[in-house]
Amino acid sequence: MSGNTFGTIFKITSFGESHGTAIGGVIDGCPAGIKLNFDFIQSELNRRKPSQSFYTSHRNEEEKVEFLSGIFEDITTGTPIAYLIKNSDVKSGDYESIKTTYRPSHADFVYDAKYGIRDYRGGGRSSARETASRVVGGAIAKHFLQKHNISIMAYVCQIGNIKLEKHYSEIDLSTIEKSEVKCPDIEISNKMIDLLHEVHKSFDSIGGVITCVIKNVPAGLGEPVFDKLTAQLAKAMMSINASRGVSFGEGFYSAQMKGSEHNDEFIIRDNKIRTKTNHSGGIQGGISNGEDIYFNIAFKPTATIFKEQNTVNTNKEETTIKPKGRHDVCFVPRAVPIVEAMAAITITDFFLIQKGKVL
Amino acid sequence: MSGNTFGTIFKITSFGESHGTAIGGVIDGCPAGIKLNFDFIQSELNRRKPSQSFYTSHRNEEEKVEFLSGIFEDITTGTPIAYLIKNSDVKSGDYESIKTTYRPSHADFVYDAKYGIRDYRGGGRSSARETASRVVGGAIAKHFLQKHNISIMAYVCQIGNIKLEKHYSEIDLSTIEKSEVKCPDIEISNKMIDLLHEVHKSFDSIGGVITCVIKNVPAGLGEPVFDKLTAQLAKAMMSINASRGVSFGEGFYSAQMKGSEHNDEFIIRDNKIRTKTNHSGGIQGGISNGEDIYFNIAFKPTATIFKEQNTVNTNKEETTIKPKGRHDVCFVPRAVPIVEAMAAITITDFFLIQKGKVL
Amino acid sequence: MSGNTFGTIFKITSFGESHGTAIGGVIDGCPAGIKLNFDFIQSELNRRKPSQSFYTSHRNEEEKVEFLSGIFEDITTGTPIAYLIKNSDVKSGDYESIKTTYRPSHADFVYDAKYGIRDYRGGGRSSARETASRVVGGAIAKHFLQKHNISIMAYVCQIGNIKLEKHYSEIDLSTIEKSEVKCPDIEISNKMIDLLHEVHKSFDSIGGVITCVIKNVPAGLGEPVFDKLTAQLAKAMMSINASRGVSFGEGFYSAQMKGSEHNDEFIIRDNKIRTKTNHSGGIQGGISNGEDIYFNIAFKPTATIFKEQNTVNTNKEETTIKPKGRHDVCFVPRAVPIVEAMAAITITDFFLIQKGKVL
Amino acid sequence: MSGNTFGTIFKITSFGESHGTAIGGVIDGCPAGIKLNFDFIQSELNRRKPSQSFYTSHRNEEEKVEFLSGIFEDITTGTPIAYLIKNSDVKSGDYESIKTTYRPSHADFVYDAKYGIRDYRGGGRSSARETASRVVGGAIAKHFLQKHNISIMAYVCQIGNIKLEKHYSEIDLSTIEKSEVKCPDIEISNKMIDLLHEVHKSFDSIGGVITCVIKNVPAGLGEPVFDKLTAQLAKAMMSINASRGVSFGEGFYSAQMKGSEHNDEFIIRDNKIRTKTNHSGGIQGGISNGEDIYFNIAFKPTATIFKEQNTVNTNKEETTIKPKGRHDVCFVPRAVPIVEAMAAITITDFFLIQKGKVL
Repeated sequence: MSGNTFGTIFKITSFGESHGTAIGGVIDGCPAGIKLNFDFIQSELNRRKPSQSFYTSHRNEEEKVEFLSGIFEDITTGTPIAYLIKNSDVKSGDYESIKTTYRPSHADFVYDAKYGIRDYRGGGRSSARETASRVVGGAIAKHFLQKHNISIMAYVCQIGNIKLEKHYSEIDLSTIEKSEVKCPDIEISNKMIDLLHEVHKSFDSIGGVITCVIKNVPAGLGEPVFDKLTAQLAKAMMSINASRGVSFGEGFYSAQMKGSEHNDEFIIRDNKIRTKTNHSGGIQGGISNGEDIYFNIAFKPTATIFKEQNTVNTNKEETTIKPKGRHDVCFVPRAVPIVEAMAAITITDFFLIQKGKVL
Repeated sequence: MSGNTFGTIFKITSFGESHGTAIGGVIDGCPAGIKLNFDFIQSELNRRKPSQSFYTSHRNEEEKVEFLSGIFEDITTGTPIAYLIKNSDVKSGDYESIKTTYRPSHADFVYDAKYGIRDYRGGGRSSARETASRVVGGAIAKHFLQKHNISIMAYVCQIGNIKLEKHYSEIDLSTIEKSEVKCPDIEISNKMIDLLHEVHKSFDSIGGVITCVIKNVPAGLGEPVFDKLTAQLAKAMMSINASRGVSFGEGFYSAQMKGSEHNDEFIIRDNKIRTKTNHSGGIQGGISNGEDIYFNIAFKPTATIFKEQNTVNTNKEETTIKPKGRHDVCFVPRAVPIVEAMAAITITDFFLIQKGKVL
Repeated sequence: MSGNTFGTIFKITSFGESHGTAIGGVIDGCPAGIKLNFDFIQSELNRRKPSQSFYTSHRNEEEKVEFLSGIFEDITTGTPIAYLIKNSDVKSGDYESIKTTYRPSHADFVYDAKYGIRDYRGGGRSSARETASRVVGGAIAKHFLQKHNISIMAYVCQIGNIKLEKHYSEIDLSTIEKSEVKCPDIEISNKMIDLLHEVHKSFDSIGGVITCVIKNVPAGLGEPVFDKLTAQLAKAMMSINASRGVSFGEGFYSAQMKGSEHNDEFIIRDNKIRTKTNHSGGIQGGISNGEDIYFNIAFKPTATIFKEQNTVNTNKEETTIKPKGRHDVCFVPRAVPIVEAMAAITITDFFLIQKGKVL
Repeated sequence: MSGNTFGTIFKITSFGESHGTAIGGVIDGCPAGIKLNFDFIQSELNRRKPSQSFYTSHRNEEEKVEFLSGIFEDITTGTPIAYLIKNSDVKSGDYESIKTTYRPSHADFVYDAKYGIRDYRGGGRSSARETASRVVGGAIAKHFLQKHNISIMAYVCQIGNIKLEKHYSEIDLSTIEKSEVKCPDIEISNKMIDLLHEVHKSFDSIGGVITCVIKNVPAGLGEPVFDKLTAQLAKAMMSINASRGVSFGEGFYSAQMKGSEHNDEFIIRDNKIRTKTNHSGGIQGGISNGEDIYFNIAFKPTATIFKEQNTVNTNKEETTIKPKGRHDVCFVPRAVPIVEAMAAITITDFFLIQKGKVL
């Protein structure tokens, strides 16, 4: 548990600071023989890029990924795939003020407490810029999953108190990317945008919730006891910056349910054992049962806001801060491809682990 | 990720099936020199034992832990601590009916899908009986934490739609164990018991929510990026049977909040950097900040109910099932010591990991 | 790296002290569906048992293994296989003298240096008794390997200065077990026995060398760079008590060879790519090439001898020691099944890892 | 065991192919607060560089390391240190002939067997060029070790049949780098150079042996049972290209010794518990005892020679090969800094692991 590697067979190691030379990663354990679609990988990165809307950071990064190893004639060779994304639009001057003053609810203070030293420029390692590395890893994992017909789609189901109450199964998920805030309901999407304008004007920020849906996962993925599929997916999601909660299937609502309501009856469909309902969200006893996997992730509002706040400095003196720099009014829509990436990495890893479980 | 080991430095490996010879575990990486209080360890196990109330399984297990190694003259030696709990009250005959019929929302089907074979007696490896192993591991971890003044307390804050709405900081946590359902509010506790009677009479089961509070964790625990303290605690909690969601601090409610509401201002208290509020639940950027850590875990209702339900059998034929055996109307109160155990193991591991982080 | 677990997919965790309640282990990641032959497992343990000859420890242990979990109707279920071997013939009184006096070249001192506490009875955790756990794990691994036609055989090729100079391919390996010292050449075997009598009479001990041969490993096992098959096998062998060196194929002699002598020409045999010679010992670039894998392991003489030796005590005073207790004149013949066990565990693990490497 | 990562707390992940864009690595778990000396790091790399002598490959690489992350104002921050070394002098045309023909004793065939695909240019991932990444990691580890006064020095003690018979303790190790072949005895060094000229003229290659000495390791490093210091160092050494054997202290000679000869008596020196002799090579029971650690590593001759050899091609046809390209007559002197690097990484990791072992 070094902090910067995730996975057992299909492993991603992430590196890089917001304002260092580059961020990047190493994918180890990717099966050999996968033909990579580099346009697709770049398009996944573009979904996460800042500067796409009024409500996102104005940092203007090309975010072009360069691959260094593990690929020969566009095909994975089974050796580690290293890649980097150079940091170009770096305005470190913006961050001098936070060198000695801790931004409330930001990671500045805890990094100092942990390491005794901190690259304060742009939040250093704690910046969400790091997640671009994960999106590259997720895009590679998606190549593998596609060969097994597994699809992953995430969307924004809540921003502030604007909620998309419909169940994912009632929604046309193909419309997600049409929404500026990744909400596949045009009406709700517009309300969310209105809310973001309002929050933006008041120099504030706001949180939200993402739903993720994974289809066609075969029954049998996930390990008993500690490495349940729910457990590892929860870890994957809670490793994303600003996430505050995760829930599967009926989630917290299941606490109110009776067994007779929550249980999913087994039925035979197309000569396969399936369930009639899917309150379990595709995972029972920590192992996939072949039904759609779905879960929600809650995100708190971005810590950096452009209002003056009380805080302390590194000399343990009380002071105030009014940060400059470039930040998101709401990071949640940009987190959609990150959620998908972490889900893709997790499912690929479990898929490969399962290969060794039976004779 | 073999499924049965948790932790990096302080590691627990769990083994055993519900109706096999014994369940047990191995703790590896426990620091040498800790004097163990065996009465305390047994008392922790007793908190989880069935047959304590009308609403729990009537399985009558002594649940006496025997230690096999790693301890010399009552002191840990730094070598692996192995232990076992024999299975005595085993009525495997009760389970013949589930040999070929899948209980809805139980792990029977997915184990068959995963392994092609299953010890069906009492749910085998998927039985919550396995969690007794974790409670022993947690009790050992608590010895370590106590030396560092860290305390962990969990309680039931919801069963069905009966909720304890108060914040943990307004509650006298010393009363938890006085409640038959581990709810430290006598009035709410009584309502919960009434509800359980009702559910019991209707041969049904019901879910609930647990709150866990960890005090005096030093700032700096938790690793950046993938092994955030939130991420690993979430994994720990979601590895507990029937858990369906986990949330930290304001949790899902944080999605509705603005940055100006959610941010915790830093202040100086007792010459230490502290926060004025604690919406973050003691963890910022995935790293502890020295404030109380608190989080909620949602549990679905027990899958086994004593009503007839539609299902299928191993021959892919539709049929019905009306399970016999011994099961909990509500498992949530018994999950309280399990939640504490997994939290204790996780915090101890991060504490030891942190030792190597600075020169 | 907790010290007590070995492997990635097929993992063994070992526990127990020489004079504690029991030693034992947990095998995690064993594929489901393997029918176990318990007589075979016990017969493997019997090969390692003391009290079989004049030159081995007179400790009289039944060494009967009891399985606790992971097996249902004699078949592995994919869940952890826990087992224990009770310590019965425990004469701790014999060891009171070593409580405060460090035996030269024994692990007493370093355990104190490491942990600040030590179970001194019979060497505690550092006793070779621990290796019985590995033999059980190896016996289970051999079930898996047998299904893939892979065989592992080890024999003693040197004790003191008595050497079996023949190459393994010139020897009838089926005669190994007929030799009291596990040397498959009757003449050399007798000379070794003579030497052991001599050493025994002089209250001394002596070292030796084991050769291990693994047949029918498919090409492609072993990971590039750090986890080469040579590297992991070397670790496996050097983890055995008293081992001091390991070498593959031509081993240290290869340092004297020229490329034109050492290189193994590729040829086509039975329509397969094979090598004409096998100086490489079946492993090239850290990966198996389908030829026989063979390697040697050197063992130093048993540290405990029944002569008076100078040493120091725990008070840092110089003193002498003349140990009592029960010890081997030469441990090397008893190490043969341990070498095979560690090889079996290693090859099984790599076999399972390889399953996830290609699409 | 992904193959490309080594270590538990102090971890190195290596990536890159001989003729790809770059090779490089990621160091995770390096303690924060270490001021790096970049000139030293580059000087370590220079010790491994080709084109330094007639007997090494004529590949002309600048081998300049670029750091991408984990360092702020020349000080380690505790976050992952990523770095790369660009491949500049790439003559892939030289390698077209080996695209379809397997070089005897090279890794070409086994990579195809393992992955079904291979970057054949310059040996791809199996090239010793990869080891430059390790030298960077080792140089960083040496910064840590230096703070604890631990030194690591390796030298060539044998090339072909020319051996430096003296014990390391009789040699002036400060002269190692003065020898073109890293042998700290001018006479033997000259004989080795003569031998290399001879081998060079006959278009052949030759093997050798390296001795490594580690001073001032505190007693107590190394884990019991599987992760003995000997075991992990053996793995580290056997992970180096072309290594064929490793031995500690008296090594294979210890097999001929009696206990009374091999045992190291404990004495009191400077009020510390020390040993009178050091046959054990500083490691007893797998744990350091405070004495000098020393061990030997055997290397086979470079597989690529400029003579015609019989082999087969990817179509399973017998053919001949006479490789072009740039290769070492003897790689052993260039392996000296690699041996030191792997030793430094291993000792640093065990040092950090030990921090969590006692209260």
